[in-house]
This record gives sequence, C-alpha cells and structure tokens, in this order.
Amino acid sequence: MSTASAISPDPTGNTPALRPPERTLMGPGPSNTPPRVLAALALPTLGHLDPAYLQIMNETAEMLRRLFRTRNRLTFPVSGTGSAGMEAAFVNMLEPGDRALVAINGVFGTRMKDIVERCGAECATVEAEWGRPVDPGAVKAALADGPFKLVAVVHAETSTGALTDVEAIGQFVRETDALYLVDTVTSLGGLPVEVDAWGIDLCYSGTQKCLSCPPGLSPITLSDRAEQVLASRKSKVASWYLDMTMIRQYWGDERTYHHTAPINMTYGLNEALRLVFEEGLEARWDRHRRVSDTLRSGLADLGLSLLGDPAASLPMLNAIRVPDGVDEASVRRRLLEEFDIEIGAGLGPLKGRIWRVGLMGHTAREQNAVWFVEAMRRILGQ
Amino acid sequence: MSTASAISPDPTGNTPALRPPERTLMGPGPSNTPPRVLAALALPTLGHLDPAYLQIMNETAEMLRRLFRTRNRLTFPVSGTGSAGMEAAFVNMLEPGDRALVAINGVFGTRMKDIVERCGAECATVEAEWGRPVDPGAVKAALADGPFKLVAVVHAETSTGALTDVEAIGQFVRETDALYLVDTVTSLGGLPVEVDAWGIDLCYSGTQKCLSCPPGLSPITLSDRAEQVLASRKSKVASWYLDMTMIRQYWGDERTYHHTAPINMTYGLNEALRLVFEEGLEARWDRHRRVSDTLRSGLADLGLSLLGDPAASLPMLNAIRVPDGVDEASVRRRLLEEFDIEIGAGLGPLKGRIWRVGLMGHTAREQNAVWFVEAMRRILGQ
Repeated sequence: MSTASAISPDPTGNTPALRPPERTLMGPGPSNTPPRVLAALALPTLGHLDPAYLQIMNETAEMLRRLFRTRNRLTFPVSGTGSAGMEAAFVNMLEPGDRALVAINGVFGTRMKDIVERCGAECATVEAEWGRPVDPGAVKAALADGPFKLVAVVHAETSTGALTDVEAIGQFVRETDALYLVDTVTSLGGLPVEVDAWGIDLCYSGTQKCLSCPPGLSPITLSDRAEQVLASRKSKVASWYLDMTMIRQYWGDERTYHHTAPINMTYGLNEALRLVFEEGLEARWDRHRRVSDTLRSGLADLGLSLLGDPAASLPMLNAIRVPDGVDEASVRRRLLEEFDIEIGAGLGPLKGRIWRVGLMGHTAREQNAVWFVEAMRRILGQ
Repeated sequence: MSTASAISPDPTGNTPALRPPERTLMGPGPSNTPPRVLAALALPTLGHLDPAYLQIMNETAEMLRRLFRTRNRLTFPVSGTGSAGMEAAFVNMLEPGDRALVAINGVFGTRMKDIVERCGAECATVEAEWGRPVDPGAVKAALADGPFKLVAVVHAETSTGALTDVEAIGQFVRETDALYLVDTVTSLGGLPVEVDAWGIDLCYSGTQKCLSCPPGLSPITLSDRAEQVLASRKSKVASWYLDMTMIRQYWGDERTYHHTAPINMTYGLNEALRLVFEEGLEARWDRHRRVSDTLRSGLADLGLSLLGDPAASLPMLNAIRVPDGVDEASVRRRLLEEFDIEIGAGLGPLKGRIWRVGLMGHTAREQNAVWFVEAMRRILGQ
C-alpha cells in the first residue's frame, strides 16, 4: 500500500490527464470493448426509476434470457463483477447447516468452496487435477454421499482453460433433489450454454469475457425451483446488497427501490447484447472456435503446446505451456511493452508454468490471433 | 415480473436502438453526469493488472484521500454502489455476538440496522423523527449502555434531507473504544466531510450524488484502528466479494488479484475527482449551498415550504412539503413528461407527503434551480 501523502486541497497539478493506452486484451478477461459498447457507456445517465430506464432493464433482461437459453423469470445483471454473481448464487440459496457439493479443478471451484463455507454450510468436494475437466462419473459417485442442497460446477475454468461437460453432470444431478449451479463466467457468449435444456437452476456469468462489455456486472438467472428455495428460506440472506428476495422486486413489476442500479454499465451491457444477437449466438460460437484454431495452428508451428486435452479445452482461453528455459514473466512484459498485447500468467500450481491467452468476444478476431503468434515468434527468436 | 417469452435466437428486430432521453436529474441521485466523465467512461478498457491501470488506481486512491480529508492508507472504491459500501463497512468489522449502536432517522439508518443484524451482531439504536437530525446528546446517553464495537450514523439522510452533526457525535464516540462509522453517500463532495479531524474510522460514499459519476462504485476509507480490527478478526468476513482482508492486497503494493475491477467505472470516478479538485472542494461546497438558496427562495415565492429545520437541512437534497390538495405523483409525472425533470418521492412515513429535490454535483447549477421553480410554478398554476 503506497504511503498516504499529506492532505492537499488542490492536487490537480499532480494528476495528468486520463489517457489509458490502447491494448490488445488477450488475458483471461477483460476482453477489448467494441466501440459501440464504449459509446453506449457514455449515453446520458437516467434515474433508476425512470420509465425509460425501466424499459432498458426489460430489454436487457429479455436479451439475457435469450443468451442463457432460458425462460426463467428471475434473470438480471447483479450490480457487481462476476465474483459478485458467484456470491449472489450461493448466498441466496444456502443457509447455515446446509450441505453443498462443489467440483474443483482450478481457482474458481476453490473460490466456490470458500464462499459455501462463509455461508455457514458444509462443503463436500470432487476434485480434478488443475488443467483437466471435472469427470462427470466422479460427480455421480460423490452424489451418493448426499443429499446435497446444491451441486456447483465451473463450466469454463478460467485459471486453466479446461472445459467441463456440465450437460453430462446435469443428468446425474437431476436424479437427486439438489439444485444445479453452473459458473459460465468465461463461456457465456463464446460456447453453447443451455440453461433450460441442461437443467441448470442457477447460472451466472461476467460481462468482461465473451460479451465484451467492461467488468462491473454479472448476469444471473434462477430457475423456478431456485426461486422457490429462495422464497422458503428460514433465515435472511446474509448479504443485504445481494439479497434477491428484495432485488427481484426491483427487477419485477413492483419496481421497488433496493439499491441504485449501475445505470451506464447497464447501457453497456444492453449494447453488448445487441451485438451478440446481431451476429447470432451460433455464429459467435463458431467464430470463437475458428479464431482459436488459427491461434493453435500458429502456436504449433512455433513448437508451443497447450496444457490439457485439446478436446476439453476452451477456445476463448488457451493455456500455453511455457517452454523449458524461457522466462515466462519476461515474455509477458515484452508482449505488453513492445506489442501492447496483454496476456495472463498461471495461477496457483500453474504459476510460472503456463501463459493464459484469451480470445474472447471482440478480441476473438483472426487478426489478433495472427498478431499474437507473430509477436511470440519475434520474442522467442524464431 | 414480466412474463418470459419463448427463447428466440435472433431478437434484434424487437430491440430498437438504445436512446435514453436527456433528463435533468433532480431526484435523490443519480445526478447528471458531466460530459468529461461520460467521455472518460468510453476510454479503452485496460486489464486490471496493467501497470497503466495500477497507476490510475493509485491516482484515484490519492484523490479519494484528499476528498475524504484523510491520510488513511486503506482508501479505495468498493466495486458496487453505495449500499455495497455500507455493507462492506459493517461486514468487515462486525462478527457474530458483537454489539453496535446505530442512529436511525430515515431509510439509511434503518438499512444499517438490518445489515448489522445480518452480520449476527446485536444492534442498539438511537432514533429521531424522520426529517430531523440525530441528537448528539441522545447518542451520548445511549453510549452509556455500551461497550459497543461500533457506532454508526448517517451524515446526510437522503430519505428526508436531514443533516446530522457527525462532528459533535464523534466527540462522544471518541470517549469510548467504539469504532466510528459515518455514511456520507449524499454529503461527500457537497458538504464538508473531515474524516481525520472528526475522528471517523469508517466512511463510505456513492459516486452518483455530489461527485456526479454514474452509480456503480462506493468510495470507502478505513482508519488504522479499523484496519487493526480487520486484521484481528476471529472469523472470516461473511462476504467473499467485500472481504477487505483480500481486497486490500489488490489495492496495496502486492496487487494480488481478488476480483476483476470495474475498469471503465474507475475511469469515470477518476475524471469526476479531477473535476472536484479543479473546482476546489470549498468552492464546490459553496456552490451547493448557493444553488440551494436560489431554489429555496424560489420555492418560498411559490408558497412551498421545506420539511424540517432549515439549519439542519441538506443543500443537495431538499425535502418539499406537498401542499394539501395536490396530487404529488401527478406533479412528478408532469415534471418528467413535460419538462424532462426527475425528482424523488417520499419514502416510508413520508410517502405522499414530500418531494425530494436534489441539486447534487453537476446538477447543482443555478439554471436547474431556476428551471425547476418555473416548472413548478406552471404546474401548480400560479
């Protein structure tokens, strides 16, 4: 933490104009925000109860339903980043003494367990090696130790690039009474996500990945079953800010004030969703796969390999093994300083062992894949 | 809640372009966003660990210290609206079994009590009639029933327009071991707030009031004493998203990733803070008082009176008594539809009895006060 300086009444001389450089954002998120979304952020602010804003909320919720492929009534953006969506999903469902089953194969499953325990609930786990998907059979086996109130899985593990078959796991969860919670922070808008068809009860995402709206909102959807669990809670939701028993009255017909909505961020999300449907969801999924193929083919030419099984890896987040003898931090620094390209480092047990290269949303364009491969070619001296 | 329609792959035909109307925002917040802040929101998105973004974080934190008039190291914007700042302040300090004293004279004191109880803490209260400030003597008397871990007061009660003397209350709190928590959501940037001089340990605000950045962030500051209480907690903070034991490592020198920061919103706040210091804090306080005087003088000419004692009322939030025989909702509707002016309704016991007219930040300009009075003159038929 930097040392606080003396209190001064006029510091303007010390603060040069705000001029963020233009980067190609190929990290694990945020991705690049397209010009139309940036322009939407700068539209005039409305009040959170203005009929014109309520209309924008309705449109946004309707587009989110289409994005999640669901008819769920309770579908809206949580007023915080993807982690707030994760917390909202758990804290609204779990009460002290409940039991949850969480699948862990990276940072975000680990975070789920932490949140479950903060809710005062008991957390059983199914673990997979970081870099590998969660094995549906292992989840099936773990379900035998139930009953669980809730089973949680990360669809696209941003920390490793592993893609888990949440449809297959859902079939096993549906044989029990447990609610099924799926994290689609990194997959939504870039890979098929079928909330209703896959029997998902709680699903949340982030705006700054394949939707290419800046970070700050977390789209979430709750099935009727999840709404019933919410309505039949014995205790108040531990978080006032994320309490959906109240928030749903603002997003519903009552329009009861809860907290002031992030108005301009909602404009950004609304515009980002228009862009998704102008392109078409299926076309967008194809684009993410195609651009990732270009990247992978270029990486293979450079002799670089991916972590994990290609069949279970994310097109929008490519985990590249750092070759022996290469200083991974120095490569990232050169990419940023010489090429204005941001990529991500490995986390936890993968720290220093992988680079994480995102091709999400607006960033998922051929030119970015080609330019990144060329930059790596130059840096690695080939 | 509107009925969910069938899932459709291409709804673009149903979503006309995003074109929010331009309103004069004279409700209880948000206020109008100035053009420079809107433009800042639309600057290119950076990664949350980019050195260029870290520099913007440092500048923003330093300007927030100057705004709060504090040397507190731990000073940053919480990634949510003002209510998230409120929750963050309580949830990081309180553990189950702790005792807090909350002063209540409106909606926001009531909300504080709710949050204290969700933390599993015991909540004693000092109450004042809605519309009146909290009496420092009453707080002093209540302190005799201590010890309390924390005493919480709202500086500017947005639901009623009452201004409480938090400096005087602070002197009594300082005679005990309690932490002193002050809500400055509506006052910060429009009225003197002196965190260090008044002995405040926890202070939070919102961006969408007198700072005139859109809603979405909540500036907060913690004294060294509050940081020590945080460091010596026995239990984990109930909220993962708002857990400052982790967030302070991202805002500190470690820069450890916690959650993805709301990048473009931080640009907006940064630019809004530049505008504050270009104008000068004292000049800004004077402006809020002057424009409120213009409003009040015009209202007096129309025979309209304010709720509460003018000496203890907020310049930035004026609670006007609805005259007998006037339909308050119809007046608000006509202001919006015929004049593009938004004002607020009364809440709780004041519902239907007052209008809440904000003159905050960029909205606090003479032309808005004059135009509002003229609109009211026409609507009330004088």
